Amino acid sequence: MNQNRHSIDFNIKATWLAIQKMYNSLGANAHITHSNGFVLLNIDPESGTPATKIAPLMGMEARSLSRMLKTMEDENVIYRKDDNADKRKVIICLTEEGKRKREIAREVVRDFNAEIRQSIPTEQLSAFLETIRKIAEIADDYKNKKII
Amino acid sequence: MNQNRHSIDFNIKATWLAIQKMYNSLGANAHITHSNGFVLLNIDPESGTPATKIAPLMGMEARSLSRMLKTMEDENVIYRKDDNADKRKVIICLTEEGKRKREIAREVVRDFNAEIRQSIPTEQLSAFLETIRKIAEIADDYKNKKII
Repeated sequence: MNQNRHSIDFNIKATWLAIQKMYNSLGANAHITHSNGFVLLNIDPESGTPATKIAPLMGMEARSLSRMLKTMEDENVIYRKDDNADKRKVIICLTEEGKRKREIAREVVRDFNAEIRQSIPTEQLSAFLETIRKIAEIADDYKNKKII
Repeated sequence: MNQNRHSIDFNIKATWLAIQKMYNSLGANAHITHSNGFVLLNIDPESGTPATKIAPLMGMEARSLSRMLKTMEDENVIYRKDDNADKRKVIICLTEEGKRKREIAREVVRDFNAEIRQSIPTEQLSAFLETIRKIAEIADDYKNKKII
């Protein structure tokens, strides 16, 4: 078997790549990539979000996120603030520019999801979400089950 | 709206990340990542595959693939061969080690897809594939529709 158009993982990957490409394309004028847009959406615009909480929210490795945060800091969309309660913790906060970009990202994500909900009947979409969550569970379990 | 657990794109991304993690975990002992495993699967083990054909098959940018191929060449899983018919073309071929790794990747992908087919009824899975392809189409169309 080839990793072909009928395999389930191929279709999930291809669709995620299509969505990623679409977000990158729509965000290009505002200099927002799908990945830093996603970081922005995971930062509380008012109180900021602890750095340690962002990676798990994004399903990313801490090290990859760390590089991305450094770039976003250089671009002046986020800044780091010490946590008053726990000096070892760092809170990631949005600058005014970061808040502006977060708002654009929020609108793009909202509008795209609305477009899907408009094109696909509610029941079909519910069944879809149920199935894709089930597949994620199977992948999680499978990871621990099999050793090559 | 937050990019929350109910949004469609969030679920697709999260599931793809779970699958990616599972493949990386299962391939770790054999030093196969999900992405170079996927490259291996897209190379014909007998006749090789033109370099220019691989990127579109993977939905990748040519530049990112080029870096990956360089690494895989250094690791001695692939080699480059000139095309006899067209000297400007390069054919990517698998070394014996590459063929061995491709076979492992093929089995892992086949077994994971079989596991899904065993856990989810055929009809539910068909409906799922239909919906996810539709979402990919919507993303493709949406990319051209909206300018920020």
